[in-house]
Amino acid sequence: MRRVFSTQAIQTAIEKSLPDFQKIAGSSAVRTQESVRRQFARDESHFISPPPAVVLEPTNVEQVSKFLKLCNDRGIPIVPFGTGTGLEGGSMSTLGGVCISTQQITGEPELREQDFVCSVKPSTTRLALNDAIKHSGLFFPVDPGADASVCGMVATSASGTNAIRYGTMKENVINLEVVLADGTILHTKGKGRCPRKSSAGFNFTELFVGSEGTLGVITQATVKVHPRPQFLSAAVCSFPSVHQAASTVVEILQWSIPVARIELLDTVQVQASNAYSNLTLRESPTLFIEFHGSSEKEVADQTAAVEDICKSHESLDFDSGASDEKMASLWKARHNAYYAALAMRTGARGFTTDVCVPISKLADVISETRSDLDEHDILGTVVGHVGDGNFHVILPTIEEDKTEHRKIQSFSDRLVRRALAADGTCTGEHGIGLGKRKYLREELGENTIRLMHTVKKALDPKNIMNPGKVLPEL
Amino acid sequence: MRRVFSTQAIQTAIEKSLPDFQKIAGSSAVRTQESVRRQFARDESHFISPPPAVVLEPTNVEQVSKFLKLCNDRGIPIVPFGTGTGLEGGSMSTLGGVCISTQQITGEPELREQDFVCSVKPSTTRLALNDAIKHSGLFFPVDPGADASVCGMVATSASGTNAIRYGTMKENVINLEVVLADGTILHTKGKGRCPRKSSAGFNFTELFVGSEGTLGVITQATVKVHPRPQFLSAAVCSFPSVHQAASTVVEILQWSIPVARIELLDTVQVQASNAYSNLTLRESPTLFIEFHGSSEKEVADQTAAVEDICKSHESLDFDSGASDEKMASLWKARHNAYYAALAMRTGARGFTTDVCVPISKLADVISETRSDLDEHDILGTVVGHVGDGNFHVILPTIEEDKTEHRKIQSFSDRLVRRALAADGTCTGEHGIGLGKRKYLREELGENTIRLMHTVKKALDPKNIMNPGKVLPEL
Repeated sequence: MRRVFSTQAIQTAIEKSLPDFQKIAGSSAVRTQESVRRQFARDESHFISPPPAVVLEPTNVEQVSKFLKLCNDRGIPIVPFGTGTGLEGGSMSTLGGVCISTQQITGEPELREQDFVCSVKPSTTRLALNDAIKHSGLFFPVDPGADASVCGMVATSASGTNAIRYGTMKENVINLEVVLADGTILHTKGKGRCPRKSSAGFNFTELFVGSEGTLGVITQATVKVHPRPQFLSAAVCSFPSVHQAASTVVEILQWSIPVARIELLDTVQVQASNAYSNLTLRESPTLFIEFHGSSEKEVADQTAAVEDICKSHESLDFDSGASDEKMASLWKARHNAYYAALAMRTGARGFTTDVCVPISKLADVISETRSDLDEHDILGTVVGHVGDGNFHVILPTIEEDKTEHRKIQSFSDRLVRRALAADGTCTGEHGIGLGKRKYLREELGENTIRLMHTVKKALDPKNIMNPGKVLPEL
Repeated sequence: MRRVFSTQAIQTAIEKSLPDFQKIAGSSAVRTQESVRRQFARDESHFISPPPAVVLEPTNVEQVSKFLKLCNDRGIPIVPFGTGTGLEGGSMSTLGGVCISTQQITGEPELREQDFVCSVKPSTTRLALNDAIKHSGLFFPVDPGADASVCGMVATSASGTNAIRYGTMKENVINLEVVLADGTILHTKGKGRCPRKSSAGFNFTELFVGSEGTLGVITQATVKVHPRPQFLSAAVCSFPSVHQAASTVVEILQWSIPVARIELLDTVQVQASNAYSNLTLRESPTLFIEFHGSSEKEVADQTAAVEDICKSHESLDFDSGASDEKMASLWKARHNAYYAALAMRTGARGFTTDVCVPISKLADVISETRSDLDEHDILGTVVGHVGDGNFHVILPTIEEDKTEHRKIQSFSDRLVRRALAADGTCTGEHGIGLGKRKYLREELGENTIRLMHTVKKALDPKNIMNPGKVLPEL
């Protein structure tokens, strides 16, 4: 039987433990002020949750270990919290309980330049990492949009715009320091090790990638860094329909042109981004494409090949060779797509979906989804990393409007079922958190869910690590 | 407490179970003839083991499930066996027990051409897979040399010559059908699913990659397939020293030239390959390099850039632009390096090592290893996938010579310790099996070993799955 928490019992256990928490990390690391607790109550999703009873701010792995051991001994649930940029409620303290903020665990990124790896502490965000290593000519490519912490991106199995060329977090993490529920500190590949490959022992690195705080707290990540491309260029291309835009992507992949990014914005998203980011893009389904290469010729060849494919799918235009400034403004607009969509409606919060389907099904699933929005008169934009078959619908909603919320929830259910019927997944990069738990059994099958529980119970027998997240009930 | 097997008890339990095995899959699937059992007694390593008490040859996953359930209920140990091409004794029946040969589980590879994935049953080897999909212009790149089964390559976390460009098995497996010890059949990513990425649930696919039969039997693998390169070329280049050859590799990587393969053969291996494969290579440390590209120009540019780097490291020659036939013969010679090394000594079997170190340490570790061989007067060749920092020493040995065996074992110990001191691993691609268990604790640390046992015990509480392999004793 899994432990069932009673909120009152948790509250009492925490109150008794406050002096012990203070002994571990000093009183300034134990935050009970309501204003602080409220800061850690929500991520960027539409979910609402009570704040944690206490926020702990350890400054090193030993303190994390001691906090976890204590909570484990006393049955106190723990929710790890990074930058709070998650979109599925994964870092919300739904039971009250202890929130462990990892952002005070600081330290300079340790770059091993010749080995193309860098180790970071939880406080390092992806932009901070890139800033720290920019002198080296190397960069960390995974970019989920938000300036999330790298360790948080590990926990969520994040990806983003250029996963098509550089892979997702799973392909870019090579070693992790993790603290288990009982306080055990371990290094998945052995302390300090960073060979490019290994067949030694179980692949625990990957087991913790995407575990969303349910198996342990990630206190250090060693990630791959890549040489910055010597030559870059971009193209913007619009189409009469989303189906044509998506079909273009499929054909680009089939010709194996190594595009670095290929992003789709549907008409509504283009309108939103034009308004928000002060652009003048044609109001049609549009692809943003980026090319990386080691010579101008290589980049030009890729561009020409893609232009041909776009034209064969009746593109309305093909704008390439933009200046660096224009490229930067386009990608900034792409990264701000979420906020642009929200800005379409005053006072709205975002409800986002995140399905990913096999490439062969992409064009159909996207155009069915666009039709679904239109038919049901739902305000929403389609935007996504279509080179991976991954796309989002951003739905600006008014939190208090329950009828609208139900309508959107029904749309989201239909979208997920459409993706699952196409052999896809309910989440390409946002994780399961709270929001996708109900789909996981349908996606993975009963036996895989049971195995998740088996592993969870083995690593966290008292179920203190982010309880109520990811795993559906047995 | 882990179950300790007594060979006599196992033998008795198996004898009693023979009629039940026959009921599950027919009498022809239950092989007790000594000649058959002997076939399944060894892999290609130097380890010696008694044959299994019985070899089971299921023809489908349901039979595997029933066999495992029965063995689990009766505490009978099981060793899965693929093509028997392993190099660390991982598929040997050290306790007698049941060998489950997976090679009668047959079926045509199922290619999803537009999605760049293909599903294979255990009988499909990597060459058979490539043969089955050659009409599509796609190929499966992972090539460990031997014509291993793809599912066996999953179990071992194999890689090979072109992992540097296309990744190892870990990066190329996207879904697995697995049978657990208790007979449960599951699909790690959900049945039939093949999105290019997913953040849904725990990454069990990767947990089974490299689990070497200790966590379950792999009965189907869905792997990535890649567009065949439109243009290929190769170069052969020799150097005055292994240090210079290895330093060249490091610099090629640092310039991020996307070579498809880069293999080192030291002088002794070149001599062996010249003799075995009827070549006339210069008897010096030599790199075989392959370039893939989408245009002749791209391949020529890569070749020219690599030639410059080779020259700056005082290469003795640089032979590029070989005919297709010559390229084929060179790669055949590379794949036959193991047999060429063995052929240096009549009646010898191979003892191979398989360390992998961070690139920054590669040149030093390889040249120290070559010196170690020379100083101790040990016959051995250095050969490897140096682009990954992974190299092998192939040591042709006479099995009966115990003194020599000890000498080689000491050399192997020193090599592993050298790799571990360089932040590397004791195995880049051969797996742990029997041979590397003794190094795993030193490599991963006590806490990670304990976590391996925790997970093993959760998935296989009676310890029937390939007992005595991979995990060091607690």
